Amino acid sequence: MSATSSSDRILNAGVLGATGTVGQRFIVLLSQNPMFRVHSLGASERSAGRPYRQATKWKMSDLMPEEVRDVVVKSCDPAHFAGCDVIFSGLDASVAGDIEKAFMESDFAVFSNAKNYRMVPNVPLCVPVVNTDHYSLIAAQRAEYGLKKGFIVTNSNCSTSGLVVPLKALQDKFGPLKRVIVTTLQAISGAGYPGVASLDILDNIVPLISGEEPKMEAEVLKILGGVNDGATACAPLADLRVSATCNRVPVVDGHTECVSLEFAGTPPPIEEIKQCLREYTCEAQELGCYSAPKQVITVTEEEDRPQPRLDRNAGEGMSVTVGRIRECPVFHVKFTLLVHNTVLGAAGASILNAEYAAKKRLI
Amino acid sequence: MSATSSSDRILNAGVLGATGTVGQRFIVLLSQNPMFRVHSLGASERSAGRPYRQATKWKMSDLMPEEVRDVVVKSCDPAHFAGCDVIFSGLDASVAGDIEKAFMESDFAVFSNAKNYRMVPNVPLCVPVVNTDHYSLIAAQRAEYGLKKGFIVTNSNCSTSGLVVPLKALQDKFGPLKRVIVTTLQAISGAGYPGVASLDILDNIVPLISGEEPKMEAEVLKILGGVNDGATACAPLADLRVSATCNRVPVVDGHTECVSLEFAGTPPPIEEIKQCLREYTCEAQELGCYSAPKQVITVTEEEDRPQPRLDRNAGEGMSVTVGRIRECPVFHVKFTLLVHNTVLGAAGASILNAEYAAKKRLI
Amino acid sequence: MSATSSSDRILNAGVLGATGTVGQRFIVLLSQNPMFRVHSLGASERSAGRPYRQATKWKMSDLMPEEVRDVVVKSCDPAHFAGCDVIFSGLDASVAGDIEKAFMESDFAVFSNAKNYRMVPNVPLCVPVVNTDHYSLIAAQRAEYGLKKGFIVTNSNCSTSGLVVPLKALQDKFGPLKRVIVTTLQAISGAGYPGVASLDILDNIVPLISGEEPKMEAEVLKILGGVNDGATACAPLADLRVSATCNRVPVVDGHTECVSLEFAGTPPPIEEIKQCLREYTCEAQELGCYSAPKQVITVTEEEDRPQPRLDRNAGEGMSVTVGRIRECPVFHVKFTLLVHNTVLGAAGASILNAEYAAKKRLI
Amino acid sequence: MSATSSSDRILNAGVLGATGTVGQRFIVLLSQNPMFRVHSLGASERSAGRPYRQATKWKMSDLMPEEVRDVVVKSCDPAHFAGCDVIFSGLDASVAGDIEKAFMESDFAVFSNAKNYRMVPNVPLCVPVVNTDHYSLIAAQRAEYGLKKGFIVTNSNCSTSGLVVPLKALQDKFGPLKRVIVTTLQAISGAGYPGVASLDILDNIVPLISGEEPKMEAEVLKILGGVNDGATACAPLADLRVSATCNRVPVVDGHTECVSLEFAGTPPPIEEIKQCLREYTCEAQELGCYSAPKQVITVTEEEDRPQPRLDRNAGEGMSVTVGRIRECPVFHVKFTLLVHNTVLGAAGASILNAEYAAKKRLI
Repeated sequence: MSATSSSDRILNAGVLGATGTVGQRFIVLLSQNPMFRVHSLGASERSAGRPYRQATKWKMSDLMPEEVRDVVVKSCDPAHFAGCDVIFSGLDASVAGDIEKAFMESDFAVFSNAKNYRMVPNVPLCVPVVNTDHYSLIAAQRAEYGLKKGFIVTNSNCSTSGLVVPLKALQDKFGPLKRVIVTTLQAISGAGYPGVASLDILDNIVPLISGEEPKMEAEVLKILGGVNDGATACAPLADLRVSATCNRVPVVDGHTECVSLEFAGTPPPIEEIKQCLREYTCEAQELGCYSAPKQVITVTEEEDRPQPRLDRNAGEGMSVTVGRIRECPVFHVKFTLLVHNTVLGAAGASILNAEYAAKKRLI
Repeated sequence: MSATSSSDRILNAGVLGATGTVGQRFIVLLSQNPMFRVHSLGASERSAGRPYRQATKWKMSDLMPEEVRDVVVKSCDPAHFAGCDVIFSGLDASVAGDIEKAFMESDFAVFSNAKNYRMVPNVPLCVPVVNTDHYSLIAAQRAEYGLKKGFIVTNSNCSTSGLVVPLKALQDKFGPLKRVIVTTLQAISGAGYPGVASLDILDNIVPLISGEEPKMEAEVLKILGGVNDGATACAPLADLRVSATCNRVPVVDGHTECVSLEFAGTPPPIEEIKQCLREYTCEAQELGCYSAPKQVITVTEEEDRPQPRLDRNAGEGMSVTVGRIRECPVFHVKFTLLVHNTVLGAAGASILNAEYAAKKRLI
Repeated sequence: MSATSSSDRILNAGVLGATGTVGQRFIVLLSQNPMFRVHSLGASERSAGRPYRQATKWKMSDLMPEEVRDVVVKSCDPAHFAGCDVIFSGLDASVAGDIEKAFMESDFAVFSNAKNYRMVPNVPLCVPVVNTDHYSLIAAQRAEYGLKKGFIVTNSNCSTSGLVVPLKALQDKFGPLKRVIVTTLQAISGAGYPGVASLDILDNIVPLISGEEPKMEAEVLKILGGVNDGATACAPLADLRVSATCNRVPVVDGHTECVSLEFAGTPPPIEEIKQCLREYTCEAQELGCYSAPKQVITVTEEEDRPQPRLDRNAGEGMSVTVGRIRECPVFHVKFTLLVHNTVLGAAGASILNAEYAAKKRLI
Repeated sequence: MSATSSSDRILNAGVLGATGTVGQRFIVLLSQNPMFRVHSLGASERSAGRPYRQATKWKMSDLMPEEVRDVVVKSCDPAHFAGCDVIFSGLDASVAGDIEKAFMESDFAVFSNAKNYRMVPNVPLCVPVVNTDHYSLIAAQRAEYGLKKGFIVTNSNCSTSGLVVPLKALQDKFGPLKRVIVTTLQAISGAGYPGVASLDILDNIVPLISGEEPKMEAEVLKILGGVNDGATACAPLADLRVSATCNRVPVVDGHTECVSLEFAGTPPPIEEIKQCLREYTCEAQELGCYSAPKQVITVTEEEDRPQPRLDRNAGEGMSVTVGRIRECPVFHVKFTLLVHNTVLGAAGASILNAEYAAKKRLI
């Protein structure tokens, strides 16, 4: 790799939706990442023109990084982001559609946390420890829009991101899965700020997260599937059936998911499943991406783990913790997993997606 | 019904384990119940001899009833409970085995919340809105021990008590069930006092409740099953498979359960399922038992219900609330239910069991 | 008292701001109160014209009373409330000013929970277990506006309502107070719905409640003071200094307040203070008002009480619980009190204020 | 300073009470500290002989450091700790008295978090950013016991450690304080594990922490005072009066304290108070101690800060955050502070105390 390869450069990053909670998490993670420098911040017209420290109600437990405090926030117009090599979008779905498209058409590489383009056939919906092979779709995307450098890569819904990691490991090793039933216990940070009202969640559970279940059920099929022959569209799994039930619980960070699954073929012994999960690796690790966790899946042997407060920071929030792996009296195996919903489940996934793209010279 | 029928008398109740949280709930509920008078309180040797108000660290949000404040606590010896017509046991499983047996053999009618005798074939494991027909086992039990009046009836595990209610309604109406996968989000009060450490549950989930999953999986089969021909033993369902995953969540009272189920036969339309649940009634209602809820199952139409804080007191804690009834992409139907774990899930069930027994002149 | 006295009539009540959390509490309490019948419901134009059950996101743990489910919500115009004998206002301060004045000028008796008129000299700011003597201001108020029946009576801020109760008892018995320092730990329900964001309060404290401290510091002086000679204006205490610090804590209902106080004269022994608080009574009790608590102040002897979850329902939420009464190394005495912020601290106070007014034939 | 000065050496540390929550925090902090190597671990006889990972129910959100996982736990006998340069004690007060004395008499430098020796006149009770001048007592302590190297230095109660920091800054700059009233909102981690029962703190406040108030009231006087002329005993402040009220709140880490104070002399303007707090420095900073925070006191200007979840990690938990600095209507000034109770309030203080001692060649 030459000394001028993009993976050795420090890339200038623009963050859209910079004042929201996803944007704040992008900024915290980018400020600690040697590969990126926060260059430009975009938010609504209401925030534009103000220094970031004034435009933002900071809600992270890490302090606001010094280097962004005085950055003047811009409106989300591609013309204002000329110096940026990469765009991270933490925009709300209500505005992400038009804005992200405008950036892509202006030839920016856009890594989005929004749901708008996730299910578009030639847009990679990419959990970076699972399906970076979907990046082959970028050529088709560029061809469609006549772009040289621009594209959109999205990360998945936060609860999807946790689920697909062990499923991918198992599918790779033991063949296709047939049925998955998953019940989630999702943290409040997944709803942004102000998000969930405290009267709804103190001493309480909310048994619905609007739109979350169909998102999970569909995204899993796309992520675990491949791409078609010409790499012009994704090829979602056709034979896997997924049923998701999503609950909001009084936890700050970390989604817990209780999974029962059935293999299409003969199920392996529990010990082999554990070993398979422990040994799972991904291409982003092999390429030496900065944000790739040492251990993609952390398998716990303590019978009362994973727990959000104790395990959400495994692998700096980029590792999925899986525990209670045991036989299921109805299907083949059941287990409980934990994913940090704002790291691997959101901003961290976008950043690792961008690191991977840089390593592959797509940026 | 004659003026002297047991259901018209006020029955003297003894409460074992009276200083614990289950015992405290027994006392609160009995103090509001026109059919019972708290007569004697039993606890460990450490508490015996002290007035109840001193022996007890009261944890209920209802005030300690006046009439028990000065009752002197006794050790759990049947000889001390001579004036009692009925015994309620909130004893811990570590001591319940011997003590409850001693009371039963001394010809007391024992209604127990402990797990020790639940799976004994001739002991009714009875959720009083579901399977009071199992009371036919009492004759066999008395025969085995040569008793005139004594017997043991147990209520189920708290999470089981919520699950079996809609399952029974559906099974009665639409025929046998084939497979059930349930994930619970259980309140801390289910663990007693001191129970769950706050460091384990604030901003956290504990994905294990020791021993709970096999209990649920077995109890459901016994409760939904019948009794054998001679009414000498229960006849658990043989063809239903149940898989339970149990979590502890930071909620004070009220267990939430996410259920996916498959019928053995053709599934009915969702609307018929809702109607079936709404219309379900039980014998304890028909007999006019004081604690029987007006509505055994409260079906919610709001898509974000049931919620523990808002729905746990439905039917004074004796009604199970079922919501989010919808098709399951993997099985036939899924829904979320809520049960008040210390009322229908514990003390309330025992008390309604005793009311039913009195109505049936078994006490 | 004649059979036709207003206190024997059932009064028709209108509730303004009926869809908010204060309005919902009004409706729950009124539905259980034999003296009132909910007659008309007022809310914003957005809700007007819709049945209450559709216009409202119900957040109470009591079920929505049957009798209001189908009541069609009206806009807050006095012309729509013709059949009402009394108006309860749970309006937000941003609109309460104009609307409450319009009702008062239309000759309605208005009992308001809003802050807008609390500090007006001829408006009684009345905690009904403390200063019903301020009702003598109503004549002056009617004279000012040329009214026959109309007036406004406000209740106090929720945290004020707890503090003034023991202060009044002590002041009546032991003479003037000199200095009070109070730190509050206030429940989230005090902020309404959606109110406090869960990300702000889970595993967290918010050390500010905007505007709350000056309100407490001023309201205490008015409530503990008297009225002037002609009963044309209140006469706030001039010599008492109060310092309040207000915190929001992760508790659903019930404000805890830690109080240190200094008497102007020689302090009484701690035991006399306890006795004074226990023996305190008020005129609303003597008149037999339905909502007056049996015990205005519940004094706890357990050293770890009062606690919100265990004590907030004392006296159906109308009793203030005071505990940990002990010497203060800096002032004379310190203690911790608990008040149910949405009952005695809000809707319950307004309703008892109205009961008192009816008993005094002011309605 | 020579190349062999103790401050350049890596010191071997022994941790007593290693399996408890204070011990776990010691281990996490020491594993990140370049000055110490965890050498020996002591705990009760029940744990002795087992590898640390088996003897411990790990409750930290940081993973258990690799280097301690297989260390065999010893009983707390000085003979087993021969290779240690310094002993950190996280022992429970019920056993700390005898054990710490035994280690001190065996000529170990003991840094203790236990309360047992805090008030002994020749034992430094040292908050390392406040009163390292009390180390002059060590000579007297050694003389008393005929020791060469051994001594005991204690840190303060966790809530004391937060309070004394701004008080010290103000006292140094503006002269003696006269009166302080403080109300605390203390995190559950302060009570260890299992500590506070979840039923006591979910949706609740406990208005008592047994023994905490007198400890705070006494410790403040010792820490803010000096030592006598011969440096044979501490000389607590005689003229300051402190009144503390301590509450437990549902927060995991971080004690919030609401303080009102009166100066003995003329109070400075608020802006000067803020500046004084911002500019406060300590000797441990000047000596370049690794754990000394860059900013001893972090002054927040946002009116709704400090908040535990957002501010507890200021200065890696070693900085005290002070906000809401404003005039007090009763005393001179009031403010709210936040201290990380298990870092500056416990293990972190002991470690910085040891770093300071090493820099001063007392180890």
